[in-house]
Amino acid sequence: MAKEVTSKEENYSQWYNNLVVKADLAENSAVRGCMVIKPYGYAIWEKIQGQLDRMFKATGHQNAYFPLFIPKSFLSREAEHVEGFAKECAVVTHHRLKANPDGPGVVVDPDARLEEELIVRPTSETIIWNSYKNWIKSYRDLPILINQWANVVRWEMRTRLFLRTAEFLWQEGHTAHATAKEAMEEAQRMVQVYADFARTHMALPVVVGHKSEHERFAGALDTLCIEAMMQDGKALQAGTSHFLGQNFAKAFDVKFADKDGKLDYVWATSWGVSTRLMGALIMAHGDNNGLVLPPAIAPIQVVFVPIYKGQEELDRMVAYMKDIASELEKAGISTKIDDRDNVRSGFKFAEWELKGVPVRVVIGPRDLERGEVEICRRDTLEKSAASREGLAGHIKELLDEIQANIYNKALAFRDSKTVKVDTWDEFKERIEEGGFLLCHWDGTTETEMKIQEETKATIRCIPIDSYVCEEPGKCVYSGRPSQRRVIFARSY
Amino acid sequence: MAKEVTSKEENYSQWYNNLVVKADLAENSAVRGCMVIKPYGYAIWEKIQGQLDRMFKATGHQNAYFPLFIPKSFLSREAEHVEGFAKECAVVTHHRLKANPDGPGVVVDPDARLEEELIVRPTSETIIWNSYKNWIKSYRDLPILINQWANVVRWEMRTRLFLRTAEFLWQEGHTAHATAKEAMEEAQRMVQVYADFARTHMALPVVVGHKSEHERFAGALDTLCIEAMMQDGKALQAGTSHFLGQNFAKAFDVKFADKDGKLDYVWATSWGVSTRLMGALIMAHGDNNGLVLPPAIAPIQVVFVPIYKGQEELDRMVAYMKDIASELEKAGISTKIDDRDNVRSGFKFAEWELKGVPVRVVIGPRDLERGEVEICRRDTLEKSAASREGLAGHIKELLDEIQANIYNKALAFRDSKTVKVDTWDEFKERIEEGGFLLCHWDGTTETEMKIQEETKATIRCIPIDSYVCEEPGKCVYSGRPSQRRVIFARSY
Repeated sequence: MAKEVTSKEENYSQWYNNLVVKADLAENSAVRGCMVIKPYGYAIWEKIQGQLDRMFKATGHQNAYFPLFIPKSFLSREAEHVEGFAKECAVVTHHRLKANPDGPGVVVDPDARLEEELIVRPTSETIIWNSYKNWIKSYRDLPILINQWANVVRWEMRTRLFLRTAEFLWQEGHTAHATAKEAMEEAQRMVQVYADFARTHMALPVVVGHKSEHERFAGALDTLCIEAMMQDGKALQAGTSHFLGQNFAKAFDVKFADKDGKLDYVWATSWGVSTRLMGALIMAHGDNNGLVLPPAIAPIQVVFVPIYKGQEELDRMVAYMKDIASELEKAGISTKIDDRDNVRSGFKFAEWELKGVPVRVVIGPRDLERGEVEICRRDTLEKSAASREGLAGHIKELLDEIQANIYNKALAFRDSKTVKVDTWDEFKERIEEGGFLLCHWDGTTETEMKIQEETKATIRCIPIDSYVCEEPGKCVYSGRPSQRRVIFARSY
Repeated sequence: MAKEVTSKEENYSQWYNNLVVKADLAENSAVRGCMVIKPYGYAIWEKIQGQLDRMFKATGHQNAYFPLFIPKSFLSREAEHVEGFAKECAVVTHHRLKANPDGPGVVVDPDARLEEELIVRPTSETIIWNSYKNWIKSYRDLPILINQWANVVRWEMRTRLFLRTAEFLWQEGHTAHATAKEAMEEAQRMVQVYADFARTHMALPVVVGHKSEHERFAGALDTLCIEAMMQDGKALQAGTSHFLGQNFAKAFDVKFADKDGKLDYVWATSWGVSTRLMGALIMAHGDNNGLVLPPAIAPIQVVFVPIYKGQEELDRMVAYMKDIASELEKAGISTKIDDRDNVRSGFKFAEWELKGVPVRVVIGPRDLERGEVEICRRDTLEKSAASREGLAGHIKELLDEIQANIYNKALAFRDSKTVKVDTWDEFKERIEEGGFLLCHWDGTTETEMKIQEETKATIRCIPIDSYVCEEPGKCVYSGRPSQRRVIFARSY
């Protein structure tokens, strides 16, 4: 095979990078930390986007678009927020270039300096709440349930394709409410939408929980998240939903009159997922042959590869495949016929395995005569024969089975790598093996930081589903009393 | 009516601004020249996006995503390109803020200066061709047919919502081909896709043509465009498609080996439409009551307004409307029931007229008894009664009729404002009345510039359809011989 992938047992990190590049998902660009998302990678992102967008609209949200730039002074309005983002942002200082007076090329025109510098949005709370100020007068204007699909920039020092890039694509929901209760419910609703999407469509068995105070979003009173486990046992935060209290309303002076005319600050949430989900997808399901895409988000669900000798046979196979493909398309299944005549079938098999297409259908002249096709499923690599008759129905069932199998495999893996740990010695030993450690914690940031310093493990979340953690015990580090277990893990 | 709109006869420019803001499409933000696209405006943009995206995919294009930032040196590689964009671009010079040592807030950290400044993309030819360099080795890698949906920034000095903003949303197609012929065909194919979209979906009777050399895209050998006429008789360029020759391939050294192994530079096109289309939509069809949306891109095609006294009647009307609405939705018609109990029906009528919803269905208790509904179409404001039975079919036909009528009205208007002009005196007189002047032109930039200086009219295009212009004559300005007429107009 031309495009060989490093095995994940040999070098997990290299395996990941290999998959991203060799499956044509993305590549590094000439701009430090900024990636190019290639057509196949973008097609997967479009599937993710499309499904999430439907789920957002079904829960009453509308899309809108706010400016890319944020005036520098806006960022400072919310103290924790600026602390969280000021150190890693792209700053626009000028609005014009001019011919280089000392040689070829262009230079920044010093006369075109902006009065106030603009920040390329790292997240949009500030610019959005500055708009909401004009939109909200009374309780009748609430709730505001808005989502934005956008690019954002955070000047990360160490970047990795999809997982951590300077520019990334995401969606950010920003809602405004009359009561704290309603805003908290919204933050919870949206983290559950994320969990539902991750489980049902991406086949990721995520854990839903609260972040510790230390891990919260800069400016939030509570951060909910979904955490997924990768195949090296590390955790990956796949989405967050924040209850922002009245912090941004206070920073931007956004008040509303209630039914009795009494003024109060508005309550807020924000929530987002990003192209980081692509990284989760690859690392949770991929194998040494390449990607393994859950059918629900595979841009191509079934690929057809003809076996033939000579042009006449190729034409005959392709015509036959077109018939079948159109039957499948009618049943809502996306297909592709690989009719290239300049590469061998074995090369095609390897390439579509690399790209994670859930089902491969192979047909040669003898299959045609017998009214049969060969089917190979990507998740197990198992081959079987199937009858031409009723094939669409059979494949539809198979796709459902593959979707369920990918999820169940990831779930079984996660459970096999999740352990309750009650002593500090065991903690230090088990954390080296990866996985989720369910431990008691005394609730202090001090302990959390010490554990991180000694083991690089962080609290991924205080789970609200997936695990029964409500039991009294003693902190695994300090021995102080604790009411529930939390998840510790090393993470991306 | 609470939200009164200035009449377009009184002040066309004010009328436009009023519509944009009062119909809740967009508003200015705190950042100079950057707009906020509000949910209703964004919903229209999503309809535009969705349809164009389907048409791009149907013509073999795939979406991808390239970085927001362009290294300053890239822009200089193509001489005309940098000339065209250097004077109006946002420049990122630093990547960090720090606490202000002299007071509150944050300042740019002078230690975080970038080695090379980054330009926020004004268009992506340079960053994309720098990637294509690595993607293209042989004729087998061609054609590349890629589109990108993105935000771009051009630091315009005078901005107007949708028509000219510092940041705008757009799509940009960037294709690579083995021959000049193929690239030229692609540029032509895509301008025809735009024309088809504009006519069929946006009800804009656009003219397709070539730009003059002077009006070409910076770096193109040929620019094709669609030009629409607004109701004040001014032209609006609604989309462009460029044949870029080998300019960018040469600037970024992108060569391919043909079947015989011979190396040659790759041929290119690029093509784009932007949120400017929103401006065209408003200005081409709106009236003094508000927007008039063509059904094909209306987020809400039918709005229901109940006539009632008291809660019980309201509930009864709404229940009845839900039945009808679900029938319409099944027939592919998007609906909304305005069940607000805190505003009068007259207020609702005015609001949905302002928002340009194509059809309003009004039902009161007496209509219900009679098995009838009142229908008001937005384009003509005509009211009629319709039977409850077969209503979905009736409304479907009505929407088609409205779509056709809006187009035909705009076409008749355009034709009424298009004249052949053969003398310079007549030119100067007629240009004051607005509209398209079909004139002979001697083909020189010199004449073009003089006409612009004296009348503010520019060559909108050298039409390739819509008008029979192939006839010999004499230049309206210089009297020199000419082989065909071109369109002169003042423009947005």
